[in-house]
Amino acid sequence: MAAVTYEHIKTCKQSGARLGRVHTPHGIIETPTFMPVGTQATVKTMSPEELKEMDAHIILSNTYHLFLRPGHDLIKEAGGLHKFMNWDRPILTDSGGFQVFSLSDMRKITEEGVSFKSHLNGDKLFISPEVAMEIQNALGSDIMMAFDECPPFPAEKEYVRKSTERTSRWAERCLESHARPDDQALFAIVQGGMHEDLRKQSALDLTSMDFPGYAIGGLSVGEPKHLMYEVLEHTVPLLPANKPRYLMGVGSPDALIDGAIRGIDMFDCVLPTRIARNGTTMTSSGRLVVRNAQYARDFGPLDPKCDCYTCRNYSRAYLRHLIKADETFGLRLTTYHNLHFLLNLMRNVRQAIREDRLLDFREEFFTEYGLHDNDKGF
Amino acid sequence: MAAVTYEHIKTCKQSGARLGRVHTPHGIIETPTFMPVGTQATVKTMSPEELKEMDAHIILSNTYHLFLRPGHDLIKEAGGLHKFMNWDRPILTDSGGFQVFSLSDMRKITEEGVSFKSHLNGDKLFISPEVAMEIQNALGSDIMMAFDECPPFPAEKEYVRKSTERTSRWAERCLESHARPDDQALFAIVQGGMHEDLRKQSALDLTSMDFPGYAIGGLSVGEPKHLMYEVLEHTVPLLPANKPRYLMGVGSPDALIDGAIRGIDMFDCVLPTRIARNGTTMTSSGRLVVRNAQYARDFGPLDPKCDCYTCRNYSRAYLRHLIKADETFGLRLTTYHNLHFLLNLMRNVRQAIREDRLLDFREEFFTEYGLHDNDKGF
Repeated sequence: MAAVTYEHIKTCKQSGARLGRVHTPHGIIETPTFMPVGTQATVKTMSPEELKEMDAHIILSNTYHLFLRPGHDLIKEAGGLHKFMNWDRPILTDSGGFQVFSLSDMRKITEEGVSFKSHLNGDKLFISPEVAMEIQNALGSDIMMAFDECPPFPAEKEYVRKSTERTSRWAERCLESHARPDDQALFAIVQGGMHEDLRKQSALDLTSMDFPGYAIGGLSVGEPKHLMYEVLEHTVPLLPANKPRYLMGVGSPDALIDGAIRGIDMFDCVLPTRIARNGTTMTSSGRLVVRNAQYARDFGPLDPKCDCYTCRNYSRAYLRHLIKADETFGLRLTTYHNLHFLLNLMRNVRQAIREDRLLDFREEFFTEYGLHDNDKGF
Repeated sequence: MAAVTYEHIKTCKQSGARLGRVHTPHGIIETPTFMPVGTQATVKTMSPEELKEMDAHIILSNTYHLFLRPGHDLIKEAGGLHKFMNWDRPILTDSGGFQVFSLSDMRKITEEGVSFKSHLNGDKLFISPEVAMEIQNALGSDIMMAFDECPPFPAEKEYVRKSTERTSRWAERCLESHARPDDQALFAIVQGGMHEDLRKQSALDLTSMDFPGYAIGGLSVGEPKHLMYEVLEHTVPLLPANKPRYLMGVGSPDALIDGAIRGIDMFDCVLPTRIARNGTTMTSSGRLVVRNAQYARDFGPLDPKCDCYTCRNYSRAYLRHLIKADETFGLRLTTYHNLHFLLNLMRNVRQAIREDRLLDFREEFFTEYGLHDNDKGF
């Protein structure tokens, strides 16, 4: 029995988006879903109870960060990541690949793996497909990601080709060295940059190895959104219908809807939590920077249409005061609201699929949110 | 009908400590009590619900800070401090005096009041007894404090004498300018430094004006603890038995017990919340610096005898990881624990008074906590 299985419920007749359930050792994920990011074994400022209150089904944590600090061996000794951080619902851990390329210094890529210096203390470290599996096996996540190379955008096609081919070879090594396939599902990551032929090759390579799920990586890296959607339109049809599909690093409201319409089941992004800590919020009528002076004496809720803890109990004026005064509680309140906003959006997306009206919902949402049908997005 | 009244329940036959209830417009405070400090209209890192969970009866907020930011007029417009910060239990606001003297720059004291520069932006500001009342009337706290001058320790006796006399004159002006005596109780602050005769004069001056409650200020300012206790022993008997007595700025576990034994009903201090943010915690077996390396692989709870949210769900290793990684959630967890620890201590103190055994309890607590009967304290 596979650790993780996909149950297809229905396809939206209007949009083609799919409604499903991902079954994991720690419970069921209703899809399409958004995964809050808990980089260092905590979703910044939030408690596990608050995440449950807002109905988060699954969170993501970062292999690279936990490898550096406190170390996967320590977390294994603690009884695994779920126990360590007091979260008993599903966890997905990324491969570390993206962070190795975006955060570390002095990295050197060889066929064997990647040498790099820790961004924390300069320690010389090495991650290979085998090490990435060892780390994630120790963490005990429900869904592990294969170690990949995520090429920058833009990049020479030849570079992307070589990198994508290596990602396929690394995926095979991940599959071979994964020690706990009955407890943890290993997803592969389709790469290939913005090139249709490379995406196709990557998808073919990886699906031939029969992973229990597939991610699409290397998107949302600075390219215009229409390009991202084109890649999804080429790539998603190449993925098996009976496996979950995960679009990595996407979390703007428009892209969550447009990704679902293109057949994506799972998303993650630091966007809602990161902007919250800056005093920027997502509301039903669009982006609202609550730290701005114009809200100093605004005693109404952040979002009058929202029923989250923050909006039920606090005013824009109070949120602004807390943020200006560097009070942590302000960041808790804006983080809570933003995560609730996206999780609620995904509930609405699922309901719209159920009712075969996701395109109508998209139009309503885009209009109210003030999004135009172009590349600007959130 | 006075806004705030004191109900005496009983006096501990063993120690002389008293058990009581302070009735306020926002509910009852069981005494002796500890008041968590919410300087800027929030108890740092905590939600109101968490404070209720740990059974905080009353919190303190700072007149000086709220005057500077966001301004008392704004909070009045928001419907008062209770509504602004979503706290429907009692609030005590301090007078601003202590902060004017400890935080602001370029202060100049005259009989009229104190001119100073804001520590935030250098604005030139002025607080007099009348302004302090105006601010606190706007905030709408249940208990307001008279504007006082808190002399440093050590200080020339002549300086302390003049300052104490002025504090009495200012108290009278506060009483006269207090606009809402039916809704908010104004407490006076006994000063007089470490001098028995000045404390006596201050107490006589102030009690003759018949305030609904009395604080003892100017202690816990760097003097040895035995001196603080001597001052309490001289001063408390001069205060009326039918009014609450509040010892300002005290929050170490030993001083809470020893203050209660000397007849104090109310305490406040930033200690538990401030040290928590540094990774230092109070446990049943003493102070524990959970950020220390020795706890890196300690998978037991912070305090095995504690049943708070933090101790029920997280390990020392996890707390240390969060604090080392600068994760806010770590500060939430240590803050929660420390406040719970002191509020629980006060529950135990009240129970010991009820059972006429507070001296026995003191001995048990001091032994377990590793406190010696000397000046070192916490």
